[in-house]
Amino acid sequence: MKTKESKIPEATIKRLSTYINCLERLQAENNPVTSSEMLGESCQVSPAQIRKDLSYFGEFGVRGVGYDTKKLEGEIKEILGLNHNWPTTVVGVGKLGQALLNFAFFSKHGFRIIAAFDSDENKIGNEIAHGVTILPTTEIEKTVKNEKITIGIITTPADSAQEVADKLVAGGIKGLLNFAPIKVKVPEIITLRNVSITSELDNLAYLLTQKKR
Amino acid sequence: MKTKESKIPEATIKRLSTYINCLERLQAENNPVTSSEMLGESCQVSPAQIRKDLSYFGEFGVRGVGYDTKKLEGEIKEILGLNHNWPTTVVGVGKLGQALLNFAFFSKHGFRIIAAFDSDENKIGNEIAHGVTILPTTEIEKTVKNEKITIGIITTPADSAQEVADKLVAGGIKGLLNFAPIKVKVPEIITLRNVSITSELDNLAYLLTQKKR
Repeated sequence: MKTKESKIPEATIKRLSTYINCLERLQAENNPVTSSEMLGESCQVSPAQIRKDLSYFGEFGVRGVGYDTKKLEGEIKEILGLNHNWPTTVVGVGKLGQALLNFAFFSKHGFRIIAAFDSDENKIGNEIAHGVTILPTTEIEKTVKNEKITIGIITTPADSAQEVADKLVAGGIKGLLNFAPIKVKVPEIITLRNVSITSELDNLAYLLTQKKR
Repeated sequence: MKTKESKIPEATIKRLSTYINCLERLQAENNPVTSSEMLGESCQVSPAQIRKDLSYFGEFGVRGVGYDTKKLEGEIKEILGLNHNWPTTVVGVGKLGQALLNFAFFSKHGFRIIAAFDSDENKIGNEIAHGVTILPTTEIEKTVKNEKITIGIITTPADSAQEVADKLVAGGIKGLLNFAPIKVKVPEIITLRNVSITSELDNLAYLLTQKKR
């Protein structure tokens, strides 16, 4: 799919992801067709913003009729690359790792959990959701390579995040989502996203403190 | 504390949060003093960036000597408002909520978990970490009001996020961190941060897809 502009704002991409959730909800509520207004209401985004976001990628919907909710969902998934199959692994099966492994979201968006790793001997060998068994972290490189795993999700403590990232990279991972409260260093060729839950909370405290001052 | 500029970049605030983690690590490794270079190495941030981030807030460290790691940690916590006491609640005690409740991070950064809520009758009454008992979501408004809870963390499914946000706001919450995969609408006076794990993962898929095309 060719895009009108080569550089799409990151905020647009994030909203596209939200639109998928809203379109799913609209379908569940028996709405085969929707409008920018209705979708906007459902997503808490202005109709103009929705039209602008979609306009980056071409023409959607039928003027005067609206959008076919199921079709638009598929089109947005195609834009985001979610119709692909993304072999994915989670490293660190603590509570956060378990929360992610239980996300129904994963399979709906094309992320197929192929493997999970932990360094805790009490967890190794346990079968987690998706019929996947927890492997020791010493197996990361080999498994990523053999199973052609594309996406790695790091949910380890800060201490082990870099070591885990190195092993994933050595195995040939393409993209990393890092939840550990520390930045990891990877070669530029790897697509890396850091999600720092602690930073978000600290940021909230900062904003509240500014209001008080 | 007066800041040099009224508008500090959000990225700076996020990095300050990272610096705290790194300074704690340096102290744990018996480094009473550090330099921009050493801190930068520990945080994966350039020394120049560290100096620039800190310069927004005044003078830190001693030229030719470096930073006192413990003192700088305290100063950054003061900047972010983490030396305050933030009465906090988590709504939705699923795996993600449990992961957050188990964060040692919370108490270290001044977030004191006062209450946790869930709508699942099997969970209500259970004692979670911090000696807090899970209450039914019908108690949100009253509890937030009585306990003067300032920060609410929403870790419910998308379906109930708005209802929960409304209850927290009705109780007098000041700041919200929303992990539900849907935007919530709150009055402008409330400080709201959305953390969409699903969007982050979708974004990663999009970036990888762009590379392939």
